[in-house]
Amino acid sequence: MKVVIIGAVAGGTSAGAKIRRNDENSEIKIYDMDYDISYSGCGLPYYIGEEIEDRDELTPRNAEFFKKKYNIDVLRRHEVLKIDAENKVLTIKNLETEDIFYENYDKLIIATGAKPIVPDIKGSEKSNVFYLRNVRQADDIKAYILKNKPKNAVIVGTGFIGLEMAENLKKLGIHVTLIEKLNQVTPGLDSDMSVYVEKYLRSKDIDIILGDSVYKLNGDSLVNEVALESGKVLNADFIIMSIGVKPNTELAREAFIELGTNGSIKVDTKMMTNIKDIYACGDCVESFSLITKKPLYRPLGSTANKMGRIAGDSITGGNLEFRGILGTGIFKIFDMAVAQTGLTEKEARNQGFNVAVCHNIKPDKPKYYHGKEMVIKAIADKNTGKLLGVQIVGYTGVDKRIDVFVTAITFGAKAEDLFHLDLAYAPPFSTTKDPVMYTGMILDNEINKGRELITPKILNEFVKKGKDVIIIDGRVSRQYEEAHIEGAINIPQAEFRNKARKFDKNKIFVTYCNKGVTGNALQNILINNGFKKVYNLSGGHKNYKAQIIKIDK
Amino acid sequence: MKVVIIGAVAGGTSAGAKIRRNDENSEIKIYDMDYDISYSGCGLPYYIGEEIEDRDELTPRNAEFFKKKYNIDVLRRHEVLKIDAENKVLTIKNLETEDIFYENYDKLIIATGAKPIVPDIKGSEKSNVFYLRNVRQADDIKAYILKNKPKNAVIVGTGFIGLEMAENLKKLGIHVTLIEKLNQVTPGLDSDMSVYVEKYLRSKDIDIILGDSVYKLNGDSLVNEVALESGKVLNADFIIMSIGVKPNTELAREAFIELGTNGSIKVDTKMMTNIKDIYACGDCVESFSLITKKPLYRPLGSTANKMGRIAGDSITGGNLEFRGILGTGIFKIFDMAVAQTGLTEKEARNQGFNVAVCHNIKPDKPKYYHGKEMVIKAIADKNTGKLLGVQIVGYTGVDKRIDVFVTAITFGAKAEDLFHLDLAYAPPFSTTKDPVMYTGMILDNEINKGRELITPKILNEFVKKGKDVIIIDGRVSRQYEEAHIEGAINIPQAEFRNKARKFDKNKIFVTYCNKGVTGNALQNILINNGFKKVYNLSGGHKNYKAQIIKIDK
Repeated sequence: MKVVIIGAVAGGTSAGAKIRRNDENSEIKIYDMDYDISYSGCGLPYYIGEEIEDRDELTPRNAEFFKKKYNIDVLRRHEVLKIDAENKVLTIKNLETEDIFYENYDKLIIATGAKPIVPDIKGSEKSNVFYLRNVRQADDIKAYILKNKPKNAVIVGTGFIGLEMAENLKKLGIHVTLIEKLNQVTPGLDSDMSVYVEKYLRSKDIDIILGDSVYKLNGDSLVNEVALESGKVLNADFIIMSIGVKPNTELAREAFIELGTNGSIKVDTKMMTNIKDIYACGDCVESFSLITKKPLYRPLGSTANKMGRIAGDSITGGNLEFRGILGTGIFKIFDMAVAQTGLTEKEARNQGFNVAVCHNIKPDKPKYYHGKEMVIKAIADKNTGKLLGVQIVGYTGVDKRIDVFVTAITFGAKAEDLFHLDLAYAPPFSTTKDPVMYTGMILDNEINKGRELITPKILNEFVKKGKDVIIIDGRVSRQYEEAHIEGAINIPQAEFRNKARKFDKNKIFVTYCNKGVTGNALQNILINNGFKKVYNLSGGHKNYKAQIIKIDK
Repeated sequence: MKVVIIGAVAGGTSAGAKIRRNDENSEIKIYDMDYDISYSGCGLPYYIGEEIEDRDELTPRNAEFFKKKYNIDVLRRHEVLKIDAENKVLTIKNLETEDIFYENYDKLIIATGAKPIVPDIKGSEKSNVFYLRNVRQADDIKAYILKNKPKNAVIVGTGFIGLEMAENLKKLGIHVTLIEKLNQVTPGLDSDMSVYVEKYLRSKDIDIILGDSVYKLNGDSLVNEVALESGKVLNADFIIMSIGVKPNTELAREAFIELGTNGSIKVDTKMMTNIKDIYACGDCVESFSLITKKPLYRPLGSTANKMGRIAGDSITGGNLEFRGILGTGIFKIFDMAVAQTGLTEKEARNQGFNVAVCHNIKPDKPKYYHGKEMVIKAIADKNTGKLLGVQIVGYTGVDKRIDVFVTAITFGAKAEDLFHLDLAYAPPFSTTKDPVMYTGMILDNEINKGRELITPKILNEFVKKGKDVIIIDGRVSRQYEEAHIEGAINIPQAEFRNKARKFDKNKIFVTYCNKGVTGNALQNILINNGFKKVYNLSGGHKNYKAQIIKIDK
């Protein structure tokens, strides 16, 4: 059996290695256009920021490695020009010699990856407008910085590559301005979580322009100004364009391979395309949501690796099948960690779920062990109790909690299940009840125990619509006097038990405290006294305060 | 309804708080013998080691807090002398005034906790023999150190309290000797994992005496020598006895409440004892294993909290039920983290499982992002593929992996499920394939793909018994020459493909490399060439080397 693979980064090399692990006798060839193979795309921003000092660390495996270890021939700088699926022949160009030749195959794997979206903007072809997808592009950015010692960078797009670049450029002493066409940073998060990221970025002296787009890039040989749709003009010594990627699927399309979301290649759970003996894996391939089972295009190295392994297994008669993804993502900016899995609130509502939402603000460890607060936003389905998605913004221990949620959601966990997890507790690692458990308790109380939560956004809508809502601030008076929600009555918890009975039991109440725990205590007191409709403000005043900028817009 | 709770630490206060959250009208009283209530027992070693500077941080909640927040009366320094279950009356002694009085109840919760085991050793009553269970005992140790400036401490027992104390005393400049009656430290781990902990402790200049016990504590007013069963005599300025705890259940026993494992109180899943209206929770209560469903006594703060909440919920008509535990534990010693959940290999074999075992040595993050290696030992059931337990020794990211395993095992995960998890990947947080996923892949290959593993211990037994085994070392010659397994033939992987065919296909082969990955590659080559019986050495030469001290004994 002769297998040819197009693409030698995450998906292609994973596929090749798996084929060899299962089968000694196949002939395996990988063609790739690039100079570098099997590199860590996710490490590129840290290479530019000099966190990674040695370029070789990004590309630990070269062609020789694959030959020795797996008896695989990797041919770099070769472009596959055409797939003749009927005759099982590829037309290939050696980019160094420009020779064109033909290669036949028994099985073909397309792992052509994705490429950055290049916007149709005047000036975007200039040499100081950079994209970051491969090692050569990272080299170019590094070389440009070294040579020109730029002072100002404009980064277009605030996904994780944009933000990771913001940190790494900042660390090199370059001033950074982020441009985002949406009204929030980190488009993958709900806007009520993105506010935490935005505030932190601003505290790190990164300029952020939201709700605006690049109109034109001015300059002669190099771009030196960025003109925005709003009319604003920014000085820029160079530009990083990070507005997303799209799959490299022209070759597949021309071979009549079926495409799906965003033009990515449609495959079955064995990674086979609609054409027999042609498989595909990695960033050029459509995935699907573990939750909705609907198609999803979410190109990530971790998924590419999975798909590659499954493609290789399928070709050699294995029984591995792709099970779908949650679309989990995580990134670090300075000391902040931002993570997300499953559906956002927005996505869940768009999918028609009857959504329960909570904002749980908790330290990752006891304060006496230097714990730092994180905000966990969790979304569950009120009808089934099942978790749908989680977003976390914090500093330490965020990666742990998101991975626990990922695992729980994968196994169909209900909110009520989280409290029962026998998670590892010792003061250097967590609180006695882990933040994950509290998240489950809060959602379970909402879904099954009538302890309803209200988000700052919906409370604001209530107030705007003139709903007759009694808002009770249960914090101590000093905190209330510093700042409180307009119209709120201050009754510290200690006095609340006695005063609660005097209210009209048929009115709508909203209780709140600093982060939500005492607000829930007030809510319990009211409900246990027979009050009909009592909401606790999700995430308390701390979360409300963080939302105000967005709410008033 | 009047609820009386005996014990105001983790279980008792959790129960009280939950009752109030569910019900405004119950009268709730908690009696406790101690001076301090609701303290963090797990924080005590760090208070002694001055990681926790302020004593109040250990006891953030006092009686006033419970009154204000929950309308609960907490009465400290009160000993319950007798439970009259028939008449629902308690006999109580005020330890300050010595007054004795009676208190009736509608519902009773026993949360009397556990106490350190005091060995029957001459001298163990002396004032510089310390136990560490409550805040006063920690105060005593602190005061003794401050006053006497001791140079040498002997710690008896190497469970997590013993080891945490070793670290914290060492940090205060005190030389520590650990005495353990077993032939390994950390009795909760399999011995092949404890060797990693032992080696690390020794590297931190902590003396360790294994397989020995205290025979006598010598000295006049204070102990100044520890005489061991072996005849060894150690100088000691003070002793920490940490050989385990036992439940405080004399009161329960005298009231004819049914006891189980280790004398702990038997309860149903609603935390009710065999006597109606008497509940129990916390460290005095028997738990059960989520895996075997068999009774288990594993007193831990995290479980006590769970049980308390469930007891409180049951009493107020809630539907929470205790689901059992995995017996998860974690502790830190200096920079090392040691974690465990589910069954050890030894326990799994004792329970009659058909066990698959792997040792997976992987960094928690890419090397270029300062990743540190951890050793994951995972145990699965060959018959069902299900994970049974995991032990991890490492430095960073250990707590994350154990919690992901806890979550997976809780939901009945099979080894093959782990590869499919969509865990959060970015270089500052993990490798593209997380160590958890690799663990699943290795076990799945063993269970379902014929890639059998052999532990160093079993390999050694093979060799001792004179089994005709061909051992192949696939590392480069330089590594082989430095150290290798006796009798192993060195064939570096690059040459192995060609040489493999020359061997007799019917012999038994063991392949190995440094950590197991290349060993698996050699194994694949042999199996794919039709060899019948090929084992890969679990954890490679690195793990083998770590085991040698134990194996030769």
